[in-house]
Amino acid sequence: MIKVVLIGSGNVAQHLIKVLQDAEKVSLVQVFARNKTSLEHLLPVSKITSSYNDIIEADVYIISVSDNAIAEVSNNIPFTNRLVVHTSGSSELSVLDAKNRKGVFYPLQTFSKDKEVEFSSIPICLEAENDEDFKTLENLSQNISKKVFAISSKQRKSLHVAAVFVCNFVNHMYTIGNQICEDNKVPFEVLQPLIIETANKITTLKPEAAQTGPALRNDTKTINKHLEFLQETNYQELYKLLTQSIQNVKKL
Amino acid sequence: MIKVVLIGSGNVAQHLIKVLQDAEKVSLVQVFARNKTSLEHLLPVSKITSSYNDIIEADVYIISVSDNAIAEVSNNIPFTNRLVVHTSGSSELSVLDAKNRKGVFYPLQTFSKDKEVEFSSIPICLEAENDEDFKTLENLSQNISKKVFAISSKQRKSLHVAAVFVCNFVNHMYTIGNQICEDNKVPFEVLQPLIIETANKITTLKPEAAQTGPALRNDTKTINKHLEFLQETNYQELYKLLTQSIQNVKKL
Repeated sequence: MIKVVLIGSGNVAQHLIKVLQDAEKVSLVQVFARNKTSLEHLLPVSKITSSYNDIIEADVYIISVSDNAIAEVSNNIPFTNRLVVHTSGSSELSVLDAKNRKGVFYPLQTFSKDKEVEFSSIPICLEAENDEDFKTLENLSQNISKKVFAISSKQRKSLHVAAVFVCNFVNHMYTIGNQICEDNKVPFEVLQPLIIETANKITTLKPEAAQTGPALRNDTKTINKHLEFLQETNYQELYKLLTQSIQNVKKL
Repeated sequence: MIKVVLIGSGNVAQHLIKVLQDAEKVSLVQVFARNKTSLEHLLPVSKITSSYNDIIEADVYIISVSDNAIAEVSNNIPFTNRLVVHTSGSSELSVLDAKNRKGVFYPLQTFSKDKEVEFSSIPICLEAENDEDFKTLENLSQNISKKVFAISSKQRKSLHVAAVFVCNFVNHMYTIGNQICEDNKVPFEVLQPLIIETANKITTLKPEAAQTGPALRNDTKTINKHLEFLQETNYQELYKLLTQSIQNVKKL
């Protein structure tokens, strides 16, 4: 049994509380939250503390708070030489206070408050300072997910930038598509199967091989028609730069 | 029974041949292809012709050829006053020759040669010059797909621009994500569940409401870290413009 204490009460923390309670061979022995009542719907109040001094013994302490608060929280912990990890994609291992053994337990997914997630298919990216701690994190993770990866701080930094492109920027493309549809009284629904198929394609094809469209074909006639169409929107420059960028990849 | 003649032998044409042969209440009576042998794996050679003068009578003639060839093909057809439609998202109704009754039958999906598609969930966008022809196209489409929409030439033009954003440009974001991963020896697999979830999200949430990330939060510290990371790539300017564009939407 791997004993876990979770520190935090936000969106990711709440998803973790649920999955850790359900996991086999894992015991969520305690949760630390400044405001106890925010978690009462998830676990018995006896398991929640709001005092650092009451934190009990465990194999892993998972800090799941906002990036800016990780350093302070890890500094406030009263004990030393235990395994303390954070869950942030954009923070280095070194933001954790050196009095404990540091690690990272980063579930790479976009978590929405009201949407259940299937944790077993979420990649968990792990990092630790020594082999034994890494094994502990690996054991823990394998009880939650089928996809566990060793990812260094340097790799995680690149992964976080890549995630901005494939998640945040992609969603912005959806926003623009939706706006064009609304402006022209076309139901956005018409585009949804295309969106899903475009995402599914890259699970079997390399994205470069899956590229289609006027930019790739250098279909200047269509590109110019589209630029003219976009004249009165904010998106003409974006269309130009993205078209150029696709053509740069093609040339490589 | 709706009798259909299909003209064309390319990628979309071949997908249509398969689905039209399988559809109930639809009879694919003939296919026109300049090179008969290119379709022999799909249907009996007796049903294929390469001579315009041998084209037989049908309720609908579907021209599924490259955009540039639609006008010429519709002009070469020897008969008049029948229902002739094209399958192009970017061509207006008016590119079809006026000697026949014009229409559009546009299945909105990204078709790959080697990947089977589930036609029943593909939106089919229809346009016709008169009600009776529209009904014929609607009948035909409902035998193939559950999603049939009336979309005018003007609406289809906007839809095609929107599709470039949500399909072609999105795929380019995947290409960039993949390249960052490869450059940093991170398996791209780590990002795939995020990609799928990002696409699935917008079937239940408006894309604007689903937006997350440093641009939306105006998290300047992370944005600057990412821009520094991207310095040696071609993608710094794109990151800047996309970040700006997300923040412009937020302000509206």
